[in-house]
Amino acid sequence: MYSTKKIILSLLIIIVLSAFTSQDTPIKIVFFGDSITQAGVNPGGYIDKMKTMLEKQGIKDKYQLIGAGIGGNKIYDLYLRYEEDVLVHNPDMVVIWVGVNDVWHKTSFGTGTDADKFERFYVTLLKKLQARGIKVVLATPAAIGERTDFSNQQDGDLNRYSQIIRDIAAKFDCPVADFRKEFLKYNLEKNATNKEAGILTTDRVHLNDVGNQLVADILMKILIK
Amino acid sequence: MYSTKKIILSLLIIIVLSAFTSQDTPIKIVFFGDSITQAGVNPGGYIDKMKTMLEKQGIKDKYQLIGAGIGGNKIYDLYLRYEEDVLVHNPDMVVIWVGVNDVWHKTSFGTGTDADKFERFYVTLLKKLQARGIKVVLATPAAIGERTDFSNQQDGDLNRYSQIIRDIAAKFDCPVADFRKEFLKYNLEKNATNKEAGILTTDRVHLNDVGNQLVADILMKILIK
Amino acid sequence: MYSTKKIILSLLIIIVLSAFTSQDTPIKIVFFGDSITQAGVNPGGYIDKMKTMLEKQGIKDKYQLIGAGIGGNKIYDLYLRYEEDVLVHNPDMVVIWVGVNDVWHKTSFGTGTDADKFERFYVTLLKKLQARGIKVVLATPAAIGERTDFSNQQDGDLNRYSQIIRDIAAKFDCPVADFRKEFLKYNLEKNATNKEAGILTTDRVHLNDVGNQLVADILMKILIK
Amino acid sequence: MYSTKKIILSLLIIIVLSAFTSQDTPIKIVFFGDSITQAGVNPGGYIDKMKTMLEKQGIKDKYQLIGAGIGGNKIYDLYLRYEEDVLVHNPDMVVIWVGVNDVWHKTSFGTGTDADKFERFYVTLLKKLQARGIKVVLATPAAIGERTDFSNQQDGDLNRYSQIIRDIAAKFDCPVADFRKEFLKYNLEKNATNKEAGILTTDRVHLNDVGNQLVADILMKILIK
Repeated sequence: MYSTKKIILSLLIIIVLSAFTSQDTPIKIVFFGDSITQAGVNPGGYIDKMKTMLEKQGIKDKYQLIGAGIGGNKIYDLYLRYEEDVLVHNPDMVVIWVGVNDVWHKTSFGTGTDADKFERFYVTLLKKLQARGIKVVLATPAAIGERTDFSNQQDGDLNRYSQIIRDIAAKFDCPVADFRKEFLKYNLEKNATNKEAGILTTDRVHLNDVGNQLVADILMKILIK
Repeated sequence: MYSTKKIILSLLIIIVLSAFTSQDTPIKIVFFGDSITQAGVNPGGYIDKMKTMLEKQGIKDKYQLIGAGIGGNKIYDLYLRYEEDVLVHNPDMVVIWVGVNDVWHKTSFGTGTDADKFERFYVTLLKKLQARGIKVVLATPAAIGERTDFSNQQDGDLNRYSQIIRDIAAKFDCPVADFRKEFLKYNLEKNATNKEAGILTTDRVHLNDVGNQLVADILMKILIK
Repeated sequence: MYSTKKIILSLLIIIVLSAFTSQDTPIKIVFFGDSITQAGVNPGGYIDKMKTMLEKQGIKDKYQLIGAGIGGNKIYDLYLRYEEDVLVHNPDMVVIWVGVNDVWHKTSFGTGTDADKFERFYVTLLKKLQARGIKVVLATPAAIGERTDFSNQQDGDLNRYSQIIRDIAAKFDCPVADFRKEFLKYNLEKNATNKEAGILTTDRVHLNDVGNQLVADILMKILIK
Repeated sequence: MYSTKKIILSLLIIIVLSAFTSQDTPIKIVFFGDSITQAGVNPGGYIDKMKTMLEKQGIKDKYQLIGAGIGGNKIYDLYLRYEEDVLVHNPDMVVIWVGVNDVWHKTSFGTGTDADKFERFYVTLLKKLQARGIKVVLATPAAIGERTDFSNQQDGDLNRYSQIIRDIAAKFDCPVADFRKEFLKYNLEKNATNKEAGILTTDRVHLNDVGNQLVADILMKILIK
């Protein structure tokens, strides 16, 4: 279908473009998650903060950070769209950060995810990514409410689903960004009056500036070597 | 690895067995569903009744009916196990009968299925089966409660999810066993006192003998030509 | 504490004010309900529309319409506040319009009201009001979604809870403003495309201008003789 | 209204009746709660165990223990039946033990109790009992699941509702049987493998023999002086 001339022209274009491209292709990292990650690409969001941090370290060209968060997503939403929203980027690394809605939607819509199905879909998704040679980092759901005495309504489930994620990470040899643990630790230090929100979140779930910075710091340590 | 003698012996066994086997391989039909289908293979269950009906018609060797129902299954449970529980049989036809738990679990566990995800998983599963050349028959969820005035708690959702199934069937050119419609029709005739259960079900959901017979009759018309 | 002069002055003021007041004290009607009634007192709301209608009929001084709606209220919220919010007005009539949240909160918060408890609290509240000689008008919950084929998620429960209200009305000899029935009737005529909202509601639940007018019309017929 | 003769007659009757009554009337204690308390009167149940303990101490005639538990009860169920099931006994003391279903029914039926309504009904009930001069002991809900790492689904709410009860107790000067705290303490010692059930409960909620004994021991210390 293509004439020889067209093929030669195409090859020339590729050669010329390559000359202007850094020889080291950047490491592509996709952040795959829910509304927290969707907001992460906004100015001041955790992905935006990571870009700024990379720039300050003078290594911004070595990494390409891609946000792939959609509000309301549960594990099986990620499963249903990983091909078109993650694989399409041909990433080197993927951070899966999900779980809040799997737990929360139990009482807000009646459509949360059973713990055993959460694990099934999580493992299925993880295997698909690992089969492509992608390095996958798992993240635990941080919080629905910041009270430190385990009296937030979803604390039980968040602890349980976080443990499921930690167990999967151990089994499949993935690093873990343990936001559940880190957020509790931070709140135990800074949230002396047992407030529901305002320490790391604006509304019990979504990150305020301090929360975005904490998440960015934790992810930088894991992702950027 | 095998000696010539062993191979010859195996071939002889196959030939002898074939002599006792009908030359026409039976049409394999897998019934893929939840607890209603799980109970369908029990004596008096709808699958068992169909076998008896086939026997009376003298055509029991022409069909192989296989139950693949598991209690509590929702559409995404079917999706997660269709390879090992359906494709493994290499069936000619599959009846998908699911939906009750997708709706019911909203209030009984907080883990029902969102309507849009129900459709997504349903279509994904259907395409996988059709891609194998399997003829797929869709079935609507019959009932959670038999009151005829649309005052059963899940009537709204059952009507909606049934319509989603009918729309998928139309789009993908599948026959529909419209149990939702047929159960209502039957109850409008026979359930004059607006009882919650006892007409076609034992407990608002699972089939009594009359319900099993009605389901068997409807499926026979669609499946057996 | 008060000087004799002040007392005399007060008495004079009362006498003068009385001269300007109609000798016939107005009939006091309290509208007791949820967010729909809370919005009813806004300009264009159903209570506001009724006031305008009374004015046009030249009988606005004969009736005093008092809104007592609070967003999110369920039957037991009404029960918990009927003394301070209803009895305090010493009303002649009370319209109880509740039920949407008792049903809706089942899936939106996990804190809906069991059908049998709904009835218990409803009857308890009704008896308390009737014991005071108050004429009580009962109203059925209109809609959560305007689709006409009973495929709105809560249709089953709304039909059931409406029937509970009708049965209580019959037993305790109360007029019924059957909004559930009237809204369906209106939608069957005007909602040919089976839309979820926009016919009588703005958002499936809260009244648009047409909805407020329909409610006002129905209540005028029942309340104003 | 009463004649002097009638008054004198009444007084005489009272005096005569008193002569036939034991001088030490037993202290009446009503246990007011849900299925856990309903089972408490069975042989080996916590109320039955308390009776045995009183007998061993030789003081069984000093106390009358009355079970008033009904399966599935939430705080507002207690409110709806306190007159006929508690006041009717004219008790000296009442133990209110409720909360499990207020939390649990959120996901099992969609009809749990909002935290603020839980408090409202609890305080209303408590005031009604205290107004009768009854000494009221409050009890926190023990467990829905015995895992010790706060990963039981309802742990967050159970902790929150328990704190509401403790706060009410402090405000209204009531002793607290803090089963929530005591059950966790016991499990931290004896449930090294983080089991869901089998330590103090048979099924995550209802008491096994060890659980009944622990409850009986705690209540004896508070009730029997």
